[in-house]
Amino acid sequence: MASSATSGLQPGTIERREPGADDVVIDITHCGVCHTDLSQTRNEWGGSVYPLVPGHEIVGVVRAVGAAVREFRVGERVGVGTFVDGGHSLGVCAREHEHRDHKHFVPTYNGKDHEGRPTYGGYAQSIVVKQGYVLHIPDGVPSDAAAPLLCAGITMYSPLRHWKAGPGKKVAVVGLGGLGHIAVKMAHAMGAEVTVLSQSLSKQADGARLGADHFHATSDPETFKKLADTFDLILVTVGATLDWNAYIGLLRMDGALVLLGIPSGPGSVDAFPLIASRKTLSGSGVGSIPECQEMLAFCAKHGIVSDIETIPIQQIESAFERLARGDVRYRFVIDMASLGK
Amino acid sequence: MASSATSGLQPGTIERREPGADDVVIDITHCGVCHTDLSQTRNEWGGSVYPLVPGHEIVGVVRAVGAAVREFRVGERVGVGTFVDGGHSLGVCAREHEHRDHKHFVPTYNGKDHEGRPTYGGYAQSIVVKQGYVLHIPDGVPSDAAAPLLCAGITMYSPLRHWKAGPGKKVAVVGLGGLGHIAVKMAHAMGAEVTVLSQSLSKQADGARLGADHFHATSDPETFKKLADTFDLILVTVGATLDWNAYIGLLRMDGALVLLGIPSGPGSVDAFPLIASRKTLSGSGVGSIPECQEMLAFCAKHGIVSDIETIPIQQIESAFERLARGDVRYRFVIDMASLGK
Repeated sequence: MASSATSGLQPGTIERREPGADDVVIDITHCGVCHTDLSQTRNEWGGSVYPLVPGHEIVGVVRAVGAAVREFRVGERVGVGTFVDGGHSLGVCAREHEHRDHKHFVPTYNGKDHEGRPTYGGYAQSIVVKQGYVLHIPDGVPSDAAAPLLCAGITMYSPLRHWKAGPGKKVAVVGLGGLGHIAVKMAHAMGAEVTVLSQSLSKQADGARLGADHFHATSDPETFKKLADTFDLILVTVGATLDWNAYIGLLRMDGALVLLGIPSGPGSVDAFPLIASRKTLSGSGVGSIPECQEMLAFCAKHGIVSDIETIPIQQIESAFERLARGDVRYRFVIDMASLGK
Repeated sequence: MASSATSGLQPGTIERREPGADDVVIDITHCGVCHTDLSQTRNEWGGSVYPLVPGHEIVGVVRAVGAAVREFRVGERVGVGTFVDGGHSLGVCAREHEHRDHKHFVPTYNGKDHEGRPTYGGYAQSIVVKQGYVLHIPDGVPSDAAAPLLCAGITMYSPLRHWKAGPGKKVAVVGLGGLGHIAVKMAHAMGAEVTVLSQSLSKQADGARLGADHFHATSDPETFKKLADTFDLILVTVGATLDWNAYIGLLRMDGALVLLGIPSGPGSVDAFPLIASRKTLSGSGVGSIPECQEMLAFCAKHGIVSDIETIPIQQIESAFERLARGDVRYRFVIDMASLGK
């Protein structure tokens, strides 16, 4: 846990709530390391509340279930993503929209549940979650490499489905990191023609291995000339504030530029290309619980998991440092068996 | 015609091409006055070529047809909109996309046709147009009030259809002018709940008469608080550069802010609302020939025409002046019988 923005992560003890009839108690085996964990632990976005336990790419095994729990059984492998409650549990929001109901959304950590208790994430031995916010991990999908699917995976899957990536569609993925490498795998599996737009060509071989048909360096101005009017969908997986107009220029008519990483500041947009070619600028964040379960089935069917580097919890600070400079291919996952050792 | 950016419009003579087998010769009876006419006559966007004859909201009567023309007959009322040729006639672009094929799009005036001849618009006695770019004016729709449908009408109809305005949808129209007043009529006829967002409440009674359910002043900061997270679709019919973030704040999840007037400069956009609620910023311009014919049928069915003020051609300069200051309810239409008098 972190006791302040500058404390770093240290061992500590938190209380989980007593499980109720609707709850699933999960022994955590693995937790992915999302860039959000780093940002919130260090209070880079403001609003962090301490003590803070990060982690929202959780995979574990069911230890116990409440009396009303029908869908999960003890010993089953399950997952928990970025939220542990929402408007649906209160009857105020449809299941497919509750992850965007910001009034009722309860983040997995650094939030408060509907009873006002703080939520603590997955860098921990166990967690107690309402059954409606627990996911089944399909057989055959390894627990460690599945963990990043619960945030990075759904964050890519949802916009690829919404904007109809598939045969005949040209999809570009900006940035080949934790998010981008999963987007490439998924878009390829959906049948789209996939292009990676990365700062340099240093990851070109990886791009081809992951399923990309093309790879271009955004540091080369020729890229923006050669690829003008090309893509139906561009997924921006990087948080840096890009020249959005340059990327809008790469869209063909009716194409969409979709922001997935939150840039530090606003961007400037020219209206004319939007009007002349009905291009859109949009964004997307995670996905609903049913969509997340659908995503896991899709990944099981197509053999998609995250490329990971497994670490013991004792290495989390150096992992954060490497993550901050983009030095990971492509996601750290904490082996939670290391906790308490 | 205008002989320069500062000449104003003066009587003059232009040559129309000899009609070919594929051509329809139209005696123009009415032509709407679009703000584009003013901007291009005065070269406000740059790129105007003189002599320039504006006008792309043309209604007239067929005087003659070429040997290959089957769909139009002499004496029939027809219309011509913003373009008179496109990629479809060359076989390079699907009919529904050619109005966005900027390589092959031939504007009705201030452009060049595929043979390199300049195009001249509808402030004229007659025009010669390929049959594929001529529209049928449905019976019962008056010629004068139909003219603005050929540009303003299709510019509103296309995004209302694309973003699925209809029952259960909340649509806001920003600006109640030549475009906006038609948008209100159409969105109302489609069954949407319609709100006008106008600078002041001065046109509130008009809004209700046109079919708006609600009317709010954008000069009142309370409007942006009261209406937060409300609309599925916001059509921006004004050319001024607005605070797009304020309007994005009025969208509910999955809502779209659609630009229809071209602002003079770029806008600033915050990424977070796009990401958190999958909102989109987009734009739209005119529509295809089949969609324009569909729009005319829709207008005939629902009794929708433009509110107009008819003028003789001799008053065009004073009409431009009034248009520049927004003093028209809601579209000037030139009665072309006045030409040559």
